[in-house]
Amino acid sequence: MAQTEAVNDSALREEALGVFEAIPQKMTAIKQTEENPDGVPLTAEKIELGKLLFFDPRMSSSQLISCQTCHNVGMGGTDALPTSIGHGWQKGPRNSPTMLNAIFNAAQFWDGRAGDLAEQAKGPVQAGVEMSNTPEVVVQTLNSMPEYVDAFKAAFPGEADPVTFDNFAAAIEQFEATLITPNSAFDRYLAGDDAAMDDQEKRGLQAFIETGCTACHYGVNFGGQDYHPFGLIAKPGAEVLPAGDKGRYEISQTADDEYVFRAAPLRNVALTAPYFHSGVVWDLAEAVKIMSSAQIGTELTDQQAEDITAFLGALTGEQPIIDHPILPMRTDTTPLPAPM
Amino acid sequence: MAQTEAVNDSALREEALGVFEAIPQKMTAIKQTEENPDGVPLTAEKIELGKLLFFDPRMSSSQLISCQTCHNVGMGGTDALPTSIGHGWQKGPRNSPTMLNAIFNAAQFWDGRAGDLAEQAKGPVQAGVEMSNTPEVVVQTLNSMPEYVDAFKAAFPGEADPVTFDNFAAAIEQFEATLITPNSAFDRYLAGDDAAMDDQEKRGLQAFIETGCTACHYGVNFGGQDYHPFGLIAKPGAEVLPAGDKGRYEISQTADDEYVFRAAPLRNVALTAPYFHSGVVWDLAEAVKIMSSAQIGTELTDQQAEDITAFLGALTGEQPIIDHPILPMRTDTTPLPAPM
Repeated sequence: MAQTEAVNDSALREEALGVFEAIPQKMTAIKQTEENPDGVPLTAEKIELGKLLFFDPRMSSSQLISCQTCHNVGMGGTDALPTSIGHGWQKGPRNSPTMLNAIFNAAQFWDGRAGDLAEQAKGPVQAGVEMSNTPEVVVQTLNSMPEYVDAFKAAFPGEADPVTFDNFAAAIEQFEATLITPNSAFDRYLAGDDAAMDDQEKRGLQAFIETGCTACHYGVNFGGQDYHPFGLIAKPGAEVLPAGDKGRYEISQTADDEYVFRAAPLRNVALTAPYFHSGVVWDLAEAVKIMSSAQIGTELTDQQAEDITAFLGALTGEQPIIDHPILPMRTDTTPLPAPM
Repeated sequence: MAQTEAVNDSALREEALGVFEAIPQKMTAIKQTEENPDGVPLTAEKIELGKLLFFDPRMSSSQLISCQTCHNVGMGGTDALPTSIGHGWQKGPRNSPTMLNAIFNAAQFWDGRAGDLAEQAKGPVQAGVEMSNTPEVVVQTLNSMPEYVDAFKAAFPGEADPVTFDNFAAAIEQFEATLITPNSAFDRYLAGDDAAMDDQEKRGLQAFIETGCTACHYGVNFGGQDYHPFGLIAKPGAEVLPAGDKGRYEISQTADDEYVFRAAPLRNVALTAPYFHSGVVWDLAEAVKIMSSAQIGTELTDQQAEDITAFLGALTGEQPIIDHPILPMRTDTTPLPAPM
C-alpha cells in the first residue's frame, strides 16, 4: 500500500454524513411524504403474500420463471448474467438491477420508467422476453388456488375482491421493501465505529468524495435518485454503451434523454457483477475507471481505482435471510403452463 | 359420500403397518447396511455446503439453472411442468421427480439408473438438455471462490484436495437427505391417532391395500423400490406412454425392460402434478384410474378413485422450510456464463 497518511476519521465521517445516509435496521412503512408522513405501513400479511408471489414461477406463462429467477435473494438480488434470460431463453435488453434496497430509489428500472416498486413489479410479468404473462392469467391463476385467495383476503382486509393485479403488485412491493441490507462496514463507520473500515477503504471513501462520484452517487442508496447521460464527458466504447439502447430517450423521445440512465445505486455493488445496463464489465475496478473517465473526466490512478473499489466493498450489507416459501397448491382450475 | 360403514381403525392400522412405514422425524445418517449399520453420518458442514450447491445457478454453464430450478423446495420438490425445461429452453425427456424423501428410494431417476443421490446429482449438471456443464468447469468454478473452498475444507476435513466433483455430489446428497416430510396425516394415523385421517381417507387406504396398489407402492416411500412395465395389464394410450421412451430398456437394452419404470414414490403426490414420466396427466384421480387399469387390471369406480385420491392427499407431510442460502461471491477467476 503506497499511502500511509493517517486518516482523520472525524473529519471524513463528517464529510460522509453530509452526503450519505445509513440503511435503516428495519422498514415499517413506505411512501412517506410531507402530506402523509406516516406513509403506507408494511403489514406481515402483505409481506408474506408478496414473498409467495415473488418466488412463484406460476406467475409466468411458462410457469418456470419467477421474480427470484432474475432477482436472486442469494446473489445480491441479481442473476449475475450480462442481460437476463427470460421466456423461451430470450435475452433481455438490459442487466437485471438488484431489488435489494431498491425501495430507496426515487424510481425503478435503468431508465426510471416505473415510479415505484409496485409499478415495477407489473413490468417483467408482462414483458414478452421475461415472464410473458398477462394480468388476466395472473389473476385467474391466483383465484384458482384457495390458499392465495385467503392470503389476499388477509393482506387486503375489507376489500370485496382483493385478488387483483394491483394488489399482486402492492404485495410484492411490500415484500421487496423488507429486502434491505443494513450494517455494512460503511454504515457502521458512519455510525461512529472507526475500526469498521480499514485504511484503504477510508482512502477510497475520501477519493470517492473528492473526485466527485458523489455528484450522482449520494444518499442512502449511493445513487438511484436522478438521471445522467452515460458518457457525460466521454462516451465509453460501443460494447459498454451499445448504440441501440438509448436509455430514457426510449420513453421521452427527447434528444436530451439520449443515452440517459439512472445513476446506479451502489449498495452491495461488489455482489452484483457484471456492471452497467449492458452488463459487459465483470471487474468492479474496471467499472470504476470507466465511470470516472466517462462521467467526470478523471483518469484515476490504479491506486485510486483500487481504493475506491475497496471502499465500494464496504457497502456490502447484511443480506436478508429468506425462508423459501411453500407455495400454494394448484387445483383443477389453475391454468396450465403455456404450450411452447 | 356413499359409504358410511364404520372403519375398524385398529385392524386397518395393523394392515397398514404390515406394508408401510412412517417418515422419520430427522435424518442423522444414510446408507446403513448390514456390514455398516451406522452408515454415513450426516454432518452440518456437508449439509450446509450441499444447500449452497443445490441453490447455485453457477453450477450450470448458462449460470441460470440450479438443482432448485427443477426441484423447487417450495413446490413439492418439482417444477410442476410436464417435462423439465433446461439449457437453451430445451425440453427434457421426462417429468422431474421430487427430491423430497428421495433418500428413501432404492435408486434414483425414473429408470433407476443412479444408485444413490450422489450419483444422481452428477447427472443433470452434465446433461446437455439440463445444466449442460462439465465436472471440470464445476470444479474450476468452485475453486475460484474462497468461500466455497473453505466450505469444502470444513465439510471434508483431512482431505488434501477436497474440491472435487465427487465431493460436490456427496454434499448435495447430504443436503437432499435432510429434505424429508414427516408427520403427514397418514403417518400420524399410523402412529395411533385415529382422528388424523377422515373416513374417506381411511376408505381410500383400505381400497389402496385391497385393490393391490401395495404390490408396487409400499414401504416408507410408497414406491421407489423396484421396477415394473408401465402397462403390465393394459398399455395406456400413447400420450401417457410415448413409444419413444422405452424406460429401463434404454439402459439395459433388454427386451424385458421395455417400458419398465420405477414404481413412483407417492409421498406428497398431491403436490407433484403433472403425473407419470411423461407428465401429461394433471388430475390425480385420473392418474389413479390409469394406474389401476394399466397395472392391476381393475376399473375403479369413481367413488374408489376419489377415496384413494383423498388418501393420497393424506401422504402430504410437513414440507422442509429452507433458508435460501447467501451464495459465495464470484471472483475474477470465476468462469463466465457460457456464451449462447
